[in-house]
Amino acid sequence: MINALSNEALEQALTTLNSKVDSDKHWQLKEGKLYRLFKFDDFSSAFSWMTKMAIWAEKQDHHPEWFNVYNRVEVYLTTHDAGGISERDFKLAEVMNKG
Amino acid sequence: MINALSNEALEQALTTLNSKVDSDKHWQLKEGKLYRLFKFDDFSSAFSWMTKMAIWAEKQDHHPEWFNVYNRVEVYLTTHDAGGISERDFKLAEVMNKG
Repeated sequence: MINALSNEALEQALTTLNSKVDSDKHWQLKEGKLYRLFKFDDFSSAFSWMTKMAIWAEKQDHHPEWFNVYNRVEVYLTTHDAGGISERDFKLAEVMNKG
Repeated sequence: MINALSNEALEQALTTLNSKVDSDKHWQLKEGKLYRLFKFDDFSSAFSWMTKMAIWAEKQDHHPEWFNVYNRVEVYLTTHDAGGISERDFKLAEVMNKG
């Protein structure tokens, strides 16, 4: 069983996550989920990245919610079993940042 | 240059498209786009299908807008160059129906 992070732990984890990257790569809270927009050169690059992330997600059994149109991918992370954002989401966010 | 379909042509094309499949596979108009929800057994099946469609879309240079969460994929088709739904969208919808 995995627990959702408390508000305080969530803020701290988000600050730590974003401190490692430039502001155009920052995650934010949106609709109660961990959200980031990813932009790529073109569809092929975007989908290649999605494929790599999909394989990682499947191995972890922790999947993103994501919307793709051409070179853009909007990602929403939450942990349904926990009823909120958990450490698993931050782990996936880190992996996604690295690409 | 490709043109958006007229309302009449759009209705006719939608009727034709849906006449070939069961009602749970029907497309509809949503937010001015051609919309269908696809459900799969699991994430792996959903993303495998997306990958196949992505390759087809890239070859045609006509890409979907799609949202995936676990075994669900919501697809929105439109032709930006035409400012509306065109025959290209119906061609992609046919391909997606076949899987």
